[in-house]
Amino acid sequence: MRNLDTDAIETFQNLAIELPSWAFGNSGTRFKVFGTPGTPRTVEEKIADAATVHRFTGLAPKVALHIPWDVVDDFGALRSYAADLGVDLGTVNSNTFQDDDYKFGSLTHTDKHVRQKAIDHHIRCIEVMNETGSRDLKIWLADGTNYPGQGDIRGRQDRLAESLATIYQHIGDEQRMVLEYKFFEPATYMTDVPDWGTSYAQVSALGERALVCLDTGHHAPGTNIEFIVAQLLRLGKLGSFDFNSRFYADDDLIVGAADPFQLFRIMFEVIRGGGLDTGSPVALMLDQCHNVEEKIPGQIRSVLNVQEMTARALLVDTDALADAQDTGDVLGANAIFMDAFYTDIRPDLAAWRAERGLPADPMAAFAQSGYQEEITAARVGGTQSSWGA
Amino acid sequence: MRNLDTDAIETFQNLAIELPSWAFGNSGTRFKVFGTPGTPRTVEEKIADAATVHRFTGLAPKVALHIPWDVVDDFGALRSYAADLGVDLGTVNSNTFQDDDYKFGSLTHTDKHVRQKAIDHHIRCIEVMNETGSRDLKIWLADGTNYPGQGDIRGRQDRLAESLATIYQHIGDEQRMVLEYKFFEPATYMTDVPDWGTSYAQVSALGERALVCLDTGHHAPGTNIEFIVAQLLRLGKLGSFDFNSRFYADDDLIVGAADPFQLFRIMFEVIRGGGLDTGSPVALMLDQCHNVEEKIPGQIRSVLNVQEMTARALLVDTDALADAQDTGDVLGANAIFMDAFYTDIRPDLAAWRAERGLPADPMAAFAQSGYQEEITAARVGGTQSSWGA
Amino acid sequence: MRNLDTDAIETFQNLAIELPSWAFGNSGTRFKVFGTPGTPRTVEEKIADAATVHRFTGLAPKVALHIPWDVVDDFGALRSYAADLGVDLGTVNSNTFQDDDYKFGSLTHTDKHVRQKAIDHHIRCIEVMNETGSRDLKIWLADGTNYPGQGDIRGRQDRLAESLATIYQHIGDEQRMVLEYKFFEPATYMTDVPDWGTSYAQVSALGERALVCLDTGHHAPGTNIEFIVAQLLRLGKLGSFDFNSRFYADDDLIVGAADPFQLFRIMFEVIRGGGLDTGSPVALMLDQCHNVEEKIPGQIRSVLNVQEMTARALLVDTDALADAQDTGDVLGANAIFMDAFYTDIRPDLAAWRAERGLPADPMAAFAQSGYQEEITAARVGGTQSSWGA
Amino acid sequence: MRNLDTDAIETFQNLAIELPSWAFGNSGTRFKVFGTPGTPRTVEEKIADAATVHRFTGLAPKVALHIPWDVVDDFGALRSYAADLGVDLGTVNSNTFQDDDYKFGSLTHTDKHVRQKAIDHHIRCIEVMNETGSRDLKIWLADGTNYPGQGDIRGRQDRLAESLATIYQHIGDEQRMVLEYKFFEPATYMTDVPDWGTSYAQVSALGERALVCLDTGHHAPGTNIEFIVAQLLRLGKLGSFDFNSRFYADDDLIVGAADPFQLFRIMFEVIRGGGLDTGSPVALMLDQCHNVEEKIPGQIRSVLNVQEMTARALLVDTDALADAQDTGDVLGANAIFMDAFYTDIRPDLAAWRAERGLPADPMAAFAQSGYQEEITAARVGGTQSSWGA
Repeated sequence: MRNLDTDAIETFQNLAIELPSWAFGNSGTRFKVFGTPGTPRTVEEKIADAATVHRFTGLAPKVALHIPWDVVDDFGALRSYAADLGVDLGTVNSNTFQDDDYKFGSLTHTDKHVRQKAIDHHIRCIEVMNETGSRDLKIWLADGTNYPGQGDIRGRQDRLAESLATIYQHIGDEQRMVLEYKFFEPATYMTDVPDWGTSYAQVSALGERALVCLDTGHHAPGTNIEFIVAQLLRLGKLGSFDFNSRFYADDDLIVGAADPFQLFRIMFEVIRGGGLDTGSPVALMLDQCHNVEEKIPGQIRSVLNVQEMTARALLVDTDALADAQDTGDVLGANAIFMDAFYTDIRPDLAAWRAERGLPADPMAAFAQSGYQEEITAARVGGTQSSWGA
Repeated sequence: MRNLDTDAIETFQNLAIELPSWAFGNSGTRFKVFGTPGTPRTVEEKIADAATVHRFTGLAPKVALHIPWDVVDDFGALRSYAADLGVDLGTVNSNTFQDDDYKFGSLTHTDKHVRQKAIDHHIRCIEVMNETGSRDLKIWLADGTNYPGQGDIRGRQDRLAESLATIYQHIGDEQRMVLEYKFFEPATYMTDVPDWGTSYAQVSALGERALVCLDTGHHAPGTNIEFIVAQLLRLGKLGSFDFNSRFYADDDLIVGAADPFQLFRIMFEVIRGGGLDTGSPVALMLDQCHNVEEKIPGQIRSVLNVQEMTARALLVDTDALADAQDTGDVLGANAIFMDAFYTDIRPDLAAWRAERGLPADPMAAFAQSGYQEEITAARVGGTQSSWGA
Repeated sequence: MRNLDTDAIETFQNLAIELPSWAFGNSGTRFKVFGTPGTPRTVEEKIADAATVHRFTGLAPKVALHIPWDVVDDFGALRSYAADLGVDLGTVNSNTFQDDDYKFGSLTHTDKHVRQKAIDHHIRCIEVMNETGSRDLKIWLADGTNYPGQGDIRGRQDRLAESLATIYQHIGDEQRMVLEYKFFEPATYMTDVPDWGTSYAQVSALGERALVCLDTGHHAPGTNIEFIVAQLLRLGKLGSFDFNSRFYADDDLIVGAADPFQLFRIMFEVIRGGGLDTGSPVALMLDQCHNVEEKIPGQIRSVLNVQEMTARALLVDTDALADAQDTGDVLGANAIFMDAFYTDIRPDLAAWRAERGLPADPMAAFAQSGYQEEITAARVGGTQSSWGA
Repeated sequence: MRNLDTDAIETFQNLAIELPSWAFGNSGTRFKVFGTPGTPRTVEEKIADAATVHRFTGLAPKVALHIPWDVVDDFGALRSYAADLGVDLGTVNSNTFQDDDYKFGSLTHTDKHVRQKAIDHHIRCIEVMNETGSRDLKIWLADGTNYPGQGDIRGRQDRLAESLATIYQHIGDEQRMVLEYKFFEPATYMTDVPDWGTSYAQVSALGERALVCLDTGHHAPGTNIEFIVAQLLRLGKLGSFDFNSRFYADDDLIVGAADPFQLFRIMFEVIRGGGLDTGSPVALMLDQCHNVEEKIPGQIRSVLNVQEMTARALLVDTDALADAQDTGDVLGANAIFMDAFYTDIRPDLAAWRAERGLPADPMAAFAQSGYQEEITAARVGGTQSSWGA
């Protein structure tokens, strides 16, 4: 590909993005969840859709599960089912926010029985991981409070530390725990893991296999996300990404849709910090909601956006950039940086795909494939998957 | 009451806050809606709860309806039912965001049939108003787009103007249309009525009985809301408030909970601009979600908060304040302002209530009344009300 | 140019961007203003630098003045001086924030003598306009308060209206007044013209030749600026732009630097609303601070950024876009929009420049021209211009 | 004092707030610095003003210095001078943002000579501390970049770590280094210490005597500051506060002025985490700008605000609160919390002051003291202090 040397090509080819099973189900806002024809009713149908994304892009070899949404009787069979479709089962995402017991918290709850229930849920997730061959347990905690005084901030943090330590003891030698932070929502006053600092402090207390998960939509307005990427890579604690984009809150839009230049800057720092090196500990994953757009092409568009911005980021002439930076040439450094961003790498990527037997234009190829029509016709009756099923 | 002269007392006694029927049903986030025992199953039960708030506070003589959530066969009968409980039916709130046809807009939709359907819904709302004796039709529009390019911003605005004009023709001589604006949500890229300027421009094009509705949670971070209050009062276009509070987005917390000083400043400007004068066109309403707290006491707390901050705002020594302002005495002016805010008016309010045969402490009185236990026992079976029913 | 039809070419060629004289002087933050060799000492030297930007880009035929920073004895002579260098004198910007009398306000001040002084300053600005042949008087008002209670929000707004009306009477038939709004700074609690709604309401009360000025850095976090552009164009009240970009507050960075996709969306709406049509009332201007980067190339980069994003915006296949919008094809519409943004138009623009006798690469051409070295050598001694001189 | 038990009284009496010398000089925005009669010309005059604040409030026994603004030939003599006025010299604040060499960074600069210069400045500050008897070296770093690509985020962080380690070696056994973070400004794209996580990670790598400084105005919009307070206290890394308040950016308003309830919540967490216990490592300091208000009363108002909110926070019935929290009584817990906030503690504080021989009303007492008139008459000629002198 244009201007990419051998190292850059290797970095580029290391790119793989995990898809969340739930992106293929319906999602929405508190106001309304719109359904669409062809939406999966089962985890198998979600995996089939995810495998389709991989078939058209070559970028998405894994599917993340959400427990209990994706609970099946036989996870070994599910793993084989996925393998037959060409994908592996990936990160297991726990859910401690939809049971009535968790109304006032889960791992941080004042009631030790509720905490134990939440801990047990995570242990069950680890058992699932053992069956699915998943490496990562991802914990996103909805815990928090809505009103000042409602909870004891400090006590909740201490209980969180204790709960996490208990779960961590169950993490296998080849497994990892990643702790996701989020600025707000569903909690509206205080969230128990609101920022990277809290996640970092909590996982640092646990051990090497506990890492931070960075969701690109989970920050305060104006936050410089690529700085956090660089910092966590520097500290050796960046475990994974949840990719999406946002204009306002946790909008969960297609990654790169709201601010493609931001995605470019993030991928530049990922590469700069070795996050795409062979053997890198950084897992890339999508976490999005396709509320009004079609889901499968939404996921295809998403992985392509990450690929395109990765390719552009690899175009940055880092030697020239370093020179400009060292000499205080602000406009020169910025120009080198922007030149890569502005370069239209799409034809090169199309050629690269074609060489590998992939569709040059995955969006068009999917549209023409008839897959959507097929599932629309086939998936009649039953209950469409959504958050909660 | 302490320090309040005759005019101030009259202003204070003009305070009345409309309650939203939906505040008594369940609400939540996109992640989970938690139910609670005793939650109303019908609009009549919602009204009964609202009337209870009024009985304990003397502050909430009206209940706002939401159509279609509160549709009944006989609105005249509903009006009588409410009257028997001591309350009137108030603002009628339209809903054009939960029908599948509105996925891509309602009054702004590119398809004229969908626009007509949305217009017809509003005409139906006006018919309801005729039966309920309601004065105000409130339009909060969820219309917007999630992705750049998805919609034609300008075309949508033009269609909105046309739709509103059509609806406005049906507004009776004694009725009003209030147009609410909202910064974002559910739309995540572009909202068709995102700010007071847009609402003001749209209603100004309609006529005198079209006004702006200001929801205190619908602004960008950092927005000076009391400025907008002052400006809209100055322009003669402030029709109504939706009160609530927020730390982050449209959190819909109890009004005054997140920033009581902000509520004080807002009430100060309401009073300053004549919004509590006898005959004022400004309607005060709550629009909140009690996701984790009890609903009836949540509403009691809310109207009390508005009352307390109104009383404190009335304590401001406006003559001394004007002097300090005119002489550039920044600290002096601020001190006069803060002194009112910091004055603990609660004992005076308790005495004022007792004089009028109201409970001195409405929260305690409600807790001791047995009402909650009663409805918990009585309201078994059926489907609890929530957004959508 | 690629894909541009005749109309689009005309639109593209209408692009002209006014430069602010003060961008060539030193600027900085409250912490420090760094100087650089070659910085102008006089308004003539600023104009010479601005003319240089025009010479290398063909995009910047006018220079805006700031009064009193750019006061000279003979504005007619200054106009000739500029004309000899190939540029016209443009918008006159008033300054009522640096005189000690304005500590607590200017056009809104409680003291009528201070208000009159500020009004007189604007009348003097109009006299300057008469001498320079400028069309636009731009009023950016620093008025506001830092503490709650410090000022009477409503009274200040009324006085503002009165002051503006007085000034407006002096605006000639071929002249215009544009009123700029700003979210905050220097005021930290309340700004008297904080949003487009306020500016719109104020100028609407004046007359046809009073319009709104939109500074792209003067909004709350998350504000959808292109929506405001579309709305003001629809209302016929968009008078001018102050272009710059920002990550946080009013950072005054090079336009397009922080979020090029946002600039693309803004230019798309400018074009959509006729803002680049022949005879359009919309004036485009830069208002930036080159605190750490070189100033002349900073301005060149800026006008090129606007040109590049205008060209990309003109590439949008609006027929196909309308079709996708009308059919609810969210991903299709977004793809058409993004395709234009992602297209690397730079080679076409280089060719277009070369055809017109302009440097294909204005940044490189300027660097090689020796101009910077020349002024660095020549401009020794004296006091470098900055805000205040 | 009302409702305060012995422990609470001790906690309350531990309250002491350090004043910044620079608060007594002029400050402003990038647009204008307004001067006022009586403003100090020398560090001695600043100290005299600070001592006056202490004399009227009993709350401010220390004055923080800023180097080089407060450089004198003989710091020992300055210490004696302060002692004679009843105050000690406190935190030494370094300044590496006003020398031309620091245009592109100081401790993070790519040029090792500049880094060494900045390191040497800090060593000089430590020498000053040795002479003044100061315990804390506070580092607020203005380092950052304005444009993407301008600097290497990761490399800058690594150089920062190295520079800090070098400085830390010079910190005496009884001394401490506190590292302040700031969201943005003066840098507008990337700040090298932008958040508490970065400061925490950097100081954790150094040792026990390196701690975090939390400036209440240095966060992204919406940040829950009391959470960070609780977290840093839990981690044992909260070294000091810079108190002020803000509506928008780093407005540096009087602490408690913008959101008194937030200050209450912060003080509640300080107390909850032992930050006011005898022997606590947490230093409280003001860092404010009195741009338009009088400076000495501005400082008096500030320390009184902290005292008032501390007293209110101590009123919280923590046993009842814990019960309500444990039983999920959201409204009950919130009510207990708010009851303390709403209690007017000012009469108790006035009595408490009077008992100790302090003015019951320090603001009034200062106004009547004639001090302001005295310094206005005396401080004629010379150059008024401001940032930079």
